[in-house]
Amino acid sequence: VKVIDGKGIASGIRERLQGEIRALAAHYKGAKPGLAIIQVGDREDSSLYVRMKQRAAEEVGMHFVLEKLPKDVRQMQLLNLIQQYNDDPKIHGILVQLPLPAHINERVITEAVDARKDVDGFNSANVGKLAKRDETPSFVPCTPKGVLHLIRSTGVDIAGKSAVVLGRSNIVGMPAAHLLMRENATVTVCHSKTTNVKEITRTADILVVAIGQAEYVRGDWVKPGAIVIDVGMNTIKDESKKSGSAVVGDVKYDEVAAVAGAITPVPGGVGPMTIAMLIENTVESAKLALSARLPPIEILPLDLKTPVPSDIEISSVQVPKSMKKLGEEVGLLDAEVDLYGKTKAKVSLEVLQRLGGRPDGKYVVVTGITPTPLGEGKSTTTIGLSQALCAHLGRLTFANVRQPSQGPTFGIKGGAAGGGYSQVIPMDEFNLHLTGDIHAVTAANNLLAAALDARIYHEGTQKDDALFNRLVPAKKGVRTFSDIQLRRLKRLGIDKTNPDDLTPEEKSRFARLDIDKSTITWNRVLDTNDRFLRKVTIGQAATEKGFERETGFDIAVASEIMAVLALTTDMADMRERFGRMVVASSKRGEPVTADDLGLTGALTVLMRDAIRPNLMQTLEGTPVFVHAGPFANIAHGNSSIIADRIALKLVGKDGFVVTEAGFGADIGMEKFFNIKCRYSGLQPNAVVLVATCRALKMHGGGPEVVAGQPLSDDYTKENLVLVKIGCANLQHHIRNAIKFGVPVVVGINVFSTDTDAEIELIRSMALEAGADAAIRCEHWARGGAGAADLAQAVIAASEKPSKFQFLYPLELSIEDKIRKIAQDIYGADDIVLEDKAKEKIVTYTKQGFAHLPICMAKTQYSISHDPELKGVPKGFVVPVRDIRASVGAGFLYPLLGAMPTIPGLPTRPCFFDVDLDIEHNRVLGLF
Amino acid sequence: VKVIDGKGIASGIRERLQGEIRALAAHYKGAKPGLAIIQVGDREDSSLYVRMKQRAAEEVGMHFVLEKLPKDVRQMQLLNLIQQYNDDPKIHGILVQLPLPAHINERVITEAVDARKDVDGFNSANVGKLAKRDETPSFVPCTPKGVLHLIRSTGVDIAGKSAVVLGRSNIVGMPAAHLLMRENATVTVCHSKTTNVKEITRTADILVVAIGQAEYVRGDWVKPGAIVIDVGMNTIKDESKKSGSAVVGDVKYDEVAAVAGAITPVPGGVGPMTIAMLIENTVESAKLALSARLPPIEILPLDLKTPVPSDIEISSVQVPKSMKKLGEEVGLLDAEVDLYGKTKAKVSLEVLQRLGGRPDGKYVVVTGITPTPLGEGKSTTTIGLSQALCAHLGRLTFANVRQPSQGPTFGIKGGAAGGGYSQVIPMDEFNLHLTGDIHAVTAANNLLAAALDARIYHEGTQKDDALFNRLVPAKKGVRTFSDIQLRRLKRLGIDKTNPDDLTPEEKSRFARLDIDKSTITWNRVLDTNDRFLRKVTIGQAATEKGFERETGFDIAVASEIMAVLALTTDMADMRERFGRMVVASSKRGEPVTADDLGLTGALTVLMRDAIRPNLMQTLEGTPVFVHAGPFANIAHGNSSIIADRIALKLVGKDGFVVTEAGFGADIGMEKFFNIKCRYSGLQPNAVVLVATCRALKMHGGGPEVVAGQPLSDDYTKENLVLVKIGCANLQHHIRNAIKFGVPVVVGINVFSTDTDAEIELIRSMALEAGADAAIRCEHWARGGAGAADLAQAVIAASEKPSKFQFLYPLELSIEDKIRKIAQDIYGADDIVLEDKAKEKIVTYTKQGFAHLPICMAKTQYSISHDPELKGVPKGFVVPVRDIRASVGAGFLYPLLGAMPTIPGLPTRPCFFDVDLDIEHNRVLGLF
Repeated sequence: VKVIDGKGIASGIRERLQGEIRALAAHYKGAKPGLAIIQVGDREDSSLYVRMKQRAAEEVGMHFVLEKLPKDVRQMQLLNLIQQYNDDPKIHGILVQLPLPAHINERVITEAVDARKDVDGFNSANVGKLAKRDETPSFVPCTPKGVLHLIRSTGVDIAGKSAVVLGRSNIVGMPAAHLLMRENATVTVCHSKTTNVKEITRTADILVVAIGQAEYVRGDWVKPGAIVIDVGMNTIKDESKKSGSAVVGDVKYDEVAAVAGAITPVPGGVGPMTIAMLIENTVESAKLALSARLPPIEILPLDLKTPVPSDIEISSVQVPKSMKKLGEEVGLLDAEVDLYGKTKAKVSLEVLQRLGGRPDGKYVVVTGITPTPLGEGKSTTTIGLSQALCAHLGRLTFANVRQPSQGPTFGIKGGAAGGGYSQVIPMDEFNLHLTGDIHAVTAANNLLAAALDARIYHEGTQKDDALFNRLVPAKKGVRTFSDIQLRRLKRLGIDKTNPDDLTPEEKSRFARLDIDKSTITWNRVLDTNDRFLRKVTIGQAATEKGFERETGFDIAVASEIMAVLALTTDMADMRERFGRMVVASSKRGEPVTADDLGLTGALTVLMRDAIRPNLMQTLEGTPVFVHAGPFANIAHGNSSIIADRIALKLVGKDGFVVTEAGFGADIGMEKFFNIKCRYSGLQPNAVVLVATCRALKMHGGGPEVVAGQPLSDDYTKENLVLVKIGCANLQHHIRNAIKFGVPVVVGINVFSTDTDAEIELIRSMALEAGADAAIRCEHWARGGAGAADLAQAVIAASEKPSKFQFLYPLELSIEDKIRKIAQDIYGADDIVLEDKAKEKIVTYTKQGFAHLPICMAKTQYSISHDPELKGVPKGFVVPVRDIRASVGAGFLYPLLGAMPTIPGLPTRPCFFDVDLDIEHNRVLGLF
Repeated sequence: VKVIDGKGIASGIRERLQGEIRALAAHYKGAKPGLAIIQVGDREDSSLYVRMKQRAAEEVGMHFVLEKLPKDVRQMQLLNLIQQYNDDPKIHGILVQLPLPAHINERVITEAVDARKDVDGFNSANVGKLAKRDETPSFVPCTPKGVLHLIRSTGVDIAGKSAVVLGRSNIVGMPAAHLLMRENATVTVCHSKTTNVKEITRTADILVVAIGQAEYVRGDWVKPGAIVIDVGMNTIKDESKKSGSAVVGDVKYDEVAAVAGAITPVPGGVGPMTIAMLIENTVESAKLALSARLPPIEILPLDLKTPVPSDIEISSVQVPKSMKKLGEEVGLLDAEVDLYGKTKAKVSLEVLQRLGGRPDGKYVVVTGITPTPLGEGKSTTTIGLSQALCAHLGRLTFANVRQPSQGPTFGIKGGAAGGGYSQVIPMDEFNLHLTGDIHAVTAANNLLAAALDARIYHEGTQKDDALFNRLVPAKKGVRTFSDIQLRRLKRLGIDKTNPDDLTPEEKSRFARLDIDKSTITWNRVLDTNDRFLRKVTIGQAATEKGFERETGFDIAVASEIMAVLALTTDMADMRERFGRMVVASSKRGEPVTADDLGLTGALTVLMRDAIRPNLMQTLEGTPVFVHAGPFANIAHGNSSIIADRIALKLVGKDGFVVTEAGFGADIGMEKFFNIKCRYSGLQPNAVVLVATCRALKMHGGGPEVVAGQPLSDDYTKENLVLVKIGCANLQHHIRNAIKFGVPVVVGINVFSTDTDAEIELIRSMALEAGADAAIRCEHWARGGAGAADLAQAVIAASEKPSKFQFLYPLELSIEDKIRKIAQDIYGADDIVLEDKAKEKIVTYTKQGFAHLPICMAKTQYSISHDPELKGVPKGFVVPVRDIRASVGAGFLYPLLGAMPTIPGLPTRPCFFDVDLDIEHNRVLGLF
């Protein structure tokens, strides 16, 4: 008889696994398979098994966690713990040691373990898949898996053999029967109700015994030559042993060994295999998780119509995939995705820690020529290109775009979700509240504004002592500073922590921010196109008598809070930046910050959900992050760094992140490179510069376009002269992009009336200026398929080595930085600083802000500061009227003209057409 | 041999099911079991089976839907359709007819069917549960279930018998083997790889053949007397038949019938049973769904600490249950619950349709004595009582509360989530953005404000023609009115639809709202405590020159939009109300509405998510709806009608909905009855009136309380005199409640320093005034357990027949309605109308608003209009300074004093203490 050496086989397996674990760690920067065992109560046998598993896990070098819960733990608490490990990316296997105390429902617990971490294989979905012929369970229960291993170790061909399983437990008998059936044995399961067990076992070529009765199977029950696997482990009295007891199996070993062809001993047979299989299951689980193999992106089919219907019609007939599915497709864990309704989700920042070691994908920025009223389709290209890369060329791609302000949605603007067959869906959700980030910005901005005026009021109506005593109130007779007050003290150079120790002069300095009202730069904001709030007088009620002042409202996206959201890199950094925000100067000329006002923590709390990117999808079901939407003139006009960082990790090295920069390349792209990339440290791989033939014709001197009147023939018929002159604008932007060391691909959005000669002319002039390629695109009418050529060119361009560099070092003086941008990017002869700007340079330099990058606030309608100068203006000098500081966001913004910071509503705003189809809960008339 | 009459047995079953279906319809107001079959492509055999199933379903009187999809349908579309039926409460069984075309993954489809509607039983979770010994699948596959039925029909005792199953398919063989094993047979499964089939079948007492080969099993394969079930259905050539073919089973019938004890014929054996079992599975599924049997509410254990920690500490250590679980516990379908992060969800209004026929639960309103700075604990009692009813007395109970304004969160107020061990959790989510409803109110309110001023501006700067042409622009040369413009025309009595047909005078009337600026009642709002916005001048920028005007901001919850949200009954009603909102009068004295401004649809779209109630939970895991939070003085101060309606249906006739009304009973309760219940049509069953010993002492003349200074001995030591005098206030409110015909239970929130004699005095005085009961409560310190006695009293009171009546009929004049409230509720001698109020009565009566209910705007600090009059004032006359109209919300609000409509920030707002623990993403210092 062959004695099957379970111990030896198991030890071989564990050795192999140890090697695999080492290889994993080497490949995945120290990552280890992680096993969590939860033990409830302190049954001795359970403790013994757990200790054995722990020893084995630690021996092979796994990450091991043991959670011991008291035996009276509430089921809910156990479930919470399981959920915690389900969500923990460092844990690949979860085992709840059975049996559990009677008050806990074992079935509920077994089902609660994520099927993907159910290394015990006890969960119904895994059992069901084991039972079904064409499915594969995530895990097979350890003991029967070990049994099969041992049977195979004898070299027997299981197919067609008669196999008998004694016992039908969920843990051994039932799954063993299924495993044998999957191996094509003819299986009979015997159990306590079987009447003629002996007759049946005698037919078995393979006999698996798991019945829990000591030495139950005798020699004459076994067919000569059969393979006998003894799963039993029973303690019997044995006077011959010192302990008085011995461990035996369910098989009377000596008798059966005399008949069988092969047999497992007890102990040393199945026992060691169970633990080896537990380790193997966990290692397999870790391999799968670490490989980050993703399910293919399910592409939503487009039902292309001609003529192309309105954006909202196209959006509303497409059924978006569930956020859960999209999350899985892009490699997010369930715990990292928080749903906001059915079509939006917020993504946890913890992804960055989990994927820290993974290489980034390619990073592509979409920008445009100088905008015209004809539109160029930058957003549409961003979405269309990402649909092409992801849905048509198989590259996992995120489109990362800004959240649009809700104000203009009801005014005159088109949607910002792209258009035609290249859109973010559902576009109404995208264009309305989304997940409330802009509302949070509004709330935070206005809390700061209210606190600022209230502080001026309270300082103005109270004596030093009263003010100090109110700011540092006694609680149960004791005054203590809050953390934020201690920070202010430190800035003031007061090295005391006990309020009672301050001198009267120190109390006054601490309590009085002493704000110079004329220096206040902090406006209130609303996300509404409300022109009447451009300039207002506040504080006119009797209760604020004597404190009224002029101020204004901006649109919410113009708030520095929004700029911070876009430029921050994590929660701690955001809090830091909020605290640094300067809202005014004191009468002594020192900056007064949000931290001085006591608001750093409160602003952070108000923005703690907003900091997480919003996951949505394109019309073709590819992933989109919508996150932050700072104004593109007084701020930097780019979506968030955080979304880009997360997306770049998620797509991995073969994937792409396509993001859009606001306005023309002279504004959005310049700021993308010099501000956003500077703060993020990310390396852009390619620029996509969007142009249309029509817009180029306008730059070439084509006639003005008047709403409601038919387009001039110049735009609808071939006119190579206008195109050629207009292409100078395109060439200027191409050359600018190249200055940053990044390859440029031109995307030409074609209309049906554009001629081949026109397109070819644009193409050749683009190449002449140094573009890598210039490609015609039809994604508006055809979705991603219409941008597949563009996508190919972008892939090629982004494979070139990146030579990215900033335009200026931060050490340059404020004036020199402004001049550098004006000359190198706009082509100006020089700049001229008006008095106010000169003053500010002195102030900001004194206040220590001279090192900040520059965010030019200028018109988008010209490469110059003058909206009237089309094409490529020459021989102009850029006037700098004033300079302001967004110290929290981290830039200075010179004002080159009057920037409207809150739009108005036209005579007939588009809200006249907006309604809700109540029966179908569908928005009508939105673009 | 016994021939098993499958056809007859099946027909008996179908007859029984028909009866059961009739009984269901009778019991559940016409509800029927619903079966949806999805067939992809048009295979002939599939069409035949589907037709047979359809016929059977229709015969027994089921709701049947057949979806035929083209054979090239995309897998995603098929999945979307399955999801649609998963979500459809009228469908109880879903069957996707197999086989599917090759491009569709059958496994994915099978798994996509909700396990609770998987009447085919093919889904892994159901198969797994079938395979496991101690589990019960939702459904057993139809054919094997039928097979078992037929075996049982022979009267055999299956336990201990030898059963052989030929074939191991997922559809028949495998599940049949499991079923037989569950019946304690000893089962052997044979299949194509089995070498000695014949030998094995000869051992079978029960032989199930499902191998798909015509007449495979011969006479000598069968043990004499065995039961043979033939699942096969094969078409063979048969020259003797006219069709040239015959249908035979997998068993050679004549031969086997000669040996077997019982046998099924083909056809007429297993076939008819499959369909009967499909019907049975669907009926069982419907029974379960219709019974609305809910899983028990899992109670979250409290870890009570003394002294009671801060609210945020208590809230943040409790792990909330998942919204999915909570939704299931309260009987919501998955599709009706939209998650907003992990701890909040929005609930679909469709619940109301689904549960329309169900009786309402008991409806309890919590109100209080006249508020004092000492606090009475009304919110805490609302939550504590609901925890008691639901977690301790086993009555499904919703607490329905208002969403608090975020402004005061950062000012001085305590949280509104309750307190101590009776809270809504997580309280930081509750007190901050929640799901953005108030932000939506702000957006909608301010869009209307911006539109109003912009319209005045455009009317003021344009001639009639230009104005008309811009309002009705030509698109491709054609002018058309939008729907909302047609409504305005109709109101103007202009019966034309073609813009070109209007006379110049009609054009002018249409285009000019001609707003009288002095009559504008619509303010802008912010959800911030910003005192500087109480009175402002807007329109001071050069771009609005000549149009500046004085106005003010209110706190967002004071907006009429919020009042509409609270009082509306469904989406169509909300749109209606928004359109009706009056923002000013025209110079001709006609009301100017939101509909005139063109905003009805846009406002509805902005509020379409806000209209859905927000689901949260208490500290003990019982359900809470947080929805709408209208100001309690200039509006009616009650949470939403919609949330109450949904909750009353969800809890059903044995359950409770406990809601809270703002301020004292003279305000919140009066408005709850006269306004909210009038619009909802709901019948309140009990009033809970909350009092504390301390607050009563203050009403009895106790000394003022100064923040920061220790409480006077009067409040911390026994003082029966003060209590007794103060109880007059309590008695007054009790008597008021009784006037509405609703029983009153007094809840006395006790402090440790209250003496038994004091409590007993309060109790006896409450009973004297007519209260049903007066109960001491300790839910703040002990959670629901501390309010269990109160809950018992509430149950008893609410079982009394309700004699609810309004205080006044709507037909009374405005003046008389005001007088009625002042005299009957406040105890005033009379009212006196100041001139402005008299004017408004004339205007509103003329404008047709005299029939509206009255929402008194008065101080909460006295039963009278004068905050200084404590206790129960006598001999006063109520001055009515002015009257305003919230026509959309549906009430007139007389102003009895100066109401602050936007609070300010104190010198040291509580935001100084607020911060985020970044490592744990936990809010600190919030109350």
